[in-house]
Amino acid sequence: MNIIDTGAAAWLTYLPMEIPQGETTQDIARSELRAGLSSLGFAAKVDVIEDDKGEGFEITQSQDGYVIKGGKTGVLYGVYHFLSAIAREESPLTPFTAPHYPLRMINHWDNMDGSVERGYAGRSLFFKNHQLDYDEQRIHRYARMLASVSINAICPNNVNVHPPMDLLITKTYLPQLKKLADILRLYGIRLLLTIEYSMPSYHGAGTADPHEKTVHTWWEERAAEVYRYIPDLVGFLVKADSEYRPGPFTYGRSHTQGANMLARALAPYGGKLFWRCFVYNCKQDWRDTETDRPKAAFATYAPLDGEFDDNVVLQIKNGPLDFQVREPASPLLYAMPNTNKALELQIAQEYTGHQIDLFYLAQLWRDVLTQLPKGAAQYIAAVGNLGDDDNWCGHDLAQANLYAYGRIAWLGESHPEQFAAEWARLTYPQAAEEVADILLASPAAYEKYAAPLGLGFMVNPHIHYGPSPEGYEFSLWGTYHRADQTAIGVDRSSRGTGFTGQYPDQFGALFDDPATCPEKLLLFFHRLRYDHVMADGRTLLQRIYDDHFNGAQEAEALKAAWEQLKDKMPERTFERVLARFERQVKNAREWRDVINTYFYRKSGISDARGRMIYS
Amino acid sequence: MNIIDTGAAAWLTYLPMEIPQGETTQDIARSELRAGLSSLGFAAKVDVIEDDKGEGFEITQSQDGYVIKGGKTGVLYGVYHFLSAIAREESPLTPFTAPHYPLRMINHWDNMDGSVERGYAGRSLFFKNHQLDYDEQRIHRYARMLASVSINAICPNNVNVHPPMDLLITKTYLPQLKKLADILRLYGIRLLLTIEYSMPSYHGAGTADPHEKTVHTWWEERAAEVYRYIPDLVGFLVKADSEYRPGPFTYGRSHTQGANMLARALAPYGGKLFWRCFVYNCKQDWRDTETDRPKAAFATYAPLDGEFDDNVVLQIKNGPLDFQVREPASPLLYAMPNTNKALELQIAQEYTGHQIDLFYLAQLWRDVLTQLPKGAAQYIAAVGNLGDDDNWCGHDLAQANLYAYGRIAWLGESHPEQFAAEWARLTYPQAAEEVADILLASPAAYEKYAAPLGLGFMVNPHIHYGPSPEGYEFSLWGTYHRADQTAIGVDRSSRGTGFTGQYPDQFGALFDDPATCPEKLLLFFHRLRYDHVMADGRTLLQRIYDDHFNGAQEAEALKAAWEQLKDKMPERTFERVLARFERQVKNAREWRDVINTYFYRKSGISDARGRMIYS
Repeated sequence: MNIIDTGAAAWLTYLPMEIPQGETTQDIARSELRAGLSSLGFAAKVDVIEDDKGEGFEITQSQDGYVIKGGKTGVLYGVYHFLSAIAREESPLTPFTAPHYPLRMINHWDNMDGSVERGYAGRSLFFKNHQLDYDEQRIHRYARMLASVSINAICPNNVNVHPPMDLLITKTYLPQLKKLADILRLYGIRLLLTIEYSMPSYHGAGTADPHEKTVHTWWEERAAEVYRYIPDLVGFLVKADSEYRPGPFTYGRSHTQGANMLARALAPYGGKLFWRCFVYNCKQDWRDTETDRPKAAFATYAPLDGEFDDNVVLQIKNGPLDFQVREPASPLLYAMPNTNKALELQIAQEYTGHQIDLFYLAQLWRDVLTQLPKGAAQYIAAVGNLGDDDNWCGHDLAQANLYAYGRIAWLGESHPEQFAAEWARLTYPQAAEEVADILLASPAAYEKYAAPLGLGFMVNPHIHYGPSPEGYEFSLWGTYHRADQTAIGVDRSSRGTGFTGQYPDQFGALFDDPATCPEKLLLFFHRLRYDHVMADGRTLLQRIYDDHFNGAQEAEALKAAWEQLKDKMPERTFERVLARFERQVKNAREWRDVINTYFYRKSGISDARGRMIYS
Repeated sequence: MNIIDTGAAAWLTYLPMEIPQGETTQDIARSELRAGLSSLGFAAKVDVIEDDKGEGFEITQSQDGYVIKGGKTGVLYGVYHFLSAIAREESPLTPFTAPHYPLRMINHWDNMDGSVERGYAGRSLFFKNHQLDYDEQRIHRYARMLASVSINAICPNNVNVHPPMDLLITKTYLPQLKKLADILRLYGIRLLLTIEYSMPSYHGAGTADPHEKTVHTWWEERAAEVYRYIPDLVGFLVKADSEYRPGPFTYGRSHTQGANMLARALAPYGGKLFWRCFVYNCKQDWRDTETDRPKAAFATYAPLDGEFDDNVVLQIKNGPLDFQVREPASPLLYAMPNTNKALELQIAQEYTGHQIDLFYLAQLWRDVLTQLPKGAAQYIAAVGNLGDDDNWCGHDLAQANLYAYGRIAWLGESHPEQFAAEWARLTYPQAAEEVADILLASPAAYEKYAAPLGLGFMVNPHIHYGPSPEGYEFSLWGTYHRADQTAIGVDRSSRGTGFTGQYPDQFGALFDDPATCPEKLLLFFHRLRYDHVMADGRTLLQRIYDDHFNGAQEAEALKAAWEQLKDKMPERTFERVLARFERQVKNAREWRDVINTYFYRKSGISDARGRMIYS
């Protein structure tokens, strides 16, 4: 294999840049297979046989080669599986395999002006100047990339609906959306659309109160029209009563009532209603120590178990706070056995370095999934990290997160080492082990130099990049650490806000006691004195200092490891990634010094090892 | 006089809303006089006689009435003086009077998209959708209002020049600008324009290096063209090498070279070049304790005294930092005896409450002017607080600041009580004393609840409204207080950064010693322990606590005083202003609690009087 600039090709280096041809998913599968085999110089015969197994497939040996056998989309997944294995010089054979999650979704937070909320990879792939305006070739390559890791649904528009995005579900935009859906469908990918909950109130019905029959009718008419254009639409995604968005609470109604109304409009078409549970008081008074933001989602939804229609899916962020570097799994994911749930992850590195700093996410996701019982969520979604940058993700290595997410969505498990190895062997076969090592080392570095021990939110307000220890301390967002001269953190134990009580007993008890609470989550759950003695005998503050010195060093080590690859990488790739590592090293030093200085000024306690802490 | 909603009329309640008619300033003067006398029901005869005294005028008694005698603009000023006095039921007689500052300018920070940088009163009066697009009637009323307090020059465009604003000095916009200048000229007001220093580099000359003859020629041609359209243009205003704007330093040249080049292009037309001295390192590393931002302007410019051309004017902010609630006068204003200087004030309440909180500025300006020797600055400019809000300034009472600025610009002195009384008697004659009292009490309240004792910059980053004690603590802006467990502030004395050494000896010595330093500036100049004992025996920290409790109470008292006026005010005015006071009270409490809690958490020291400080 040649050493090419893989920015645009991502991990699909075994395919030519030309897009596949065909009018059905089977056509695409065969086209990709032909192109891939040719590109890989693979001579054996490979047959493709379609069966009725949907997304599942198997790959067996035939007399003179291989047989890929699968359902309509299964054969496409089988083809990618086959080519990927060959490219990685592994056996392509596999017994029948089918996806763990029936819906494996990417949520784009794209706005119709072309900006991307929490986007770190350029502008929107879909929207420009309030139009659906995309490069068709690029959408094919995007869809191919997603399909190669089994993503089968995308929501192109932001959960925060800014006008005229509300009109996407009207005739103004539906003809354009249909064309997008037609391309994606070739790759087994379906559309999902966010809607504006209050839309009936200003667009014909005069109110959006879910109690009103006129509002039901209004949504039924909307759904009918949308499904006329896009008959395989997955459904609607809604952010309601969340961060200033209107919702049922606006009308004094329950979320059951609001969600079921929408779900019933979608039901005749087999549509689902994804209802985000990111609901909390975003106008908290910092003086209020009773309200505890992580408790909000469980408190709001757990009592409603069993009251949602079958086609309602509650979409729940992995942590109870908001995509911080380190959080426990959301207690809501253990609850509501009689309700459909989707786990929401974030591939976009909002709080994890903006795709400037490297943060391979598969370990974080593993930590989430291994905490949860099998079947905790029936579906999976993730906020995308893609934009119109040539290399899709801003940071070339951030592509590994998209890859890993797809693999998790298929398997229902995260295997960070395996995914890193696969991705690196596909993308940088000439330096696969080194690159995988860099990926695997990255989250620990970031976690050490960022906010300590699960504390979170010591970031610059709004932008969420770089340190600001008290950036959120007196704000309305409910994310406080209340550090003083002697201690830091919020006591969320049974002796404090009682958040630990929302967990099943075995977890709750574990988290409740600082002695048994996982160390990396100590300051998520507890308020502790700086001189609190940790398991290894160090004080809490010394641990914080050590982590920050070490984290910044580890960032430098990541950069140094990359520099070792100079001769193995195409020059442009090397320089592009190196430039990111240089920014990361600077960022890591800033985190280290700001956080250490912050604690030093607060506590007056010096580093036991006498390293430089600015006063 | 009727009780009317004075929002739109401002203090010109003695004039009808109809705009004056005429084609010369004399026409306008006579038109205003007729309308005003009629509106006031004033029967005596008033003659207007033009002489050659320019802006000066005198008002004497005649056999059957009065004579207003003055130069071309003098008669207009005389008419406003006359009407104002009659409206206030005072004698209109005055011996010959002429302005202290020959140029009395408003700098608007308006952008061509219609937004206003640091604007708190709606959108731009001049620009919309990248065009000069204004309501002509409104510009007449604006000009009348400014002329009534002797403003004689305005710069409509922001010192931060965002494209296409650079093109204002080209044929693309000059015909539109000429029309604006033609209206303003009727009121004795001339235009000034900000320019983009680097413009020659991308607009024909290939560089903006002031060393290059082609750049000189380029500016000469620009100036020639601008003056063809607007022959009485005051000149250009420039923000160069400041906060990411390019300037001579970009080309390795001195500010003398850069400013003189521009001044020479303007000289043939009698134009002046206003060169802002807001030059400092805006990429400071917070770890760097050597660099001290307040020292920057003096260090940059003082050595250049005598090297600037006669038509260069250095425009210097009143304080060395940036329009904080409390700063010493800039040391640069004492220096450079052989250089023309303009004092730059800010009427826009960027750091003083956003025209939501009331902050009457005349006392702050008095404190500046009384610190400075007469003649420290030859000209005066101020950032405007105007926008397209019906009441011009967002807060009705903020009009008093515009009024006071005009009076200062004429007199060269600030008399807060007098100006407040004048303005209140004109605007709210039915409650003049009460309103004047509210104005006069307002700055002390704000100062107490904001950052303590001259410390400054404890505000929310970017927006500059509301408290954020460490908002700027680790930023690039050079505004740090370095609070720790025991002390706060930067030592700017001879034992610290040496900033006090930039002042004339008598001031430098005063500031240098905490014992003689004015108390309100203590933390501007000194780093002090929380237990530092103040003159009255309280500790520094107790003083901070007391100020914050008192300041919030004083804000409530302002609101209560306004509420007393319910029956004396037109309902809409009353409610509009009351709504602002309600926001101010909330804001003041937030300041109080955040600042007190911040210091309590840092120091561990409780309030001696046991009041509520949140932990």
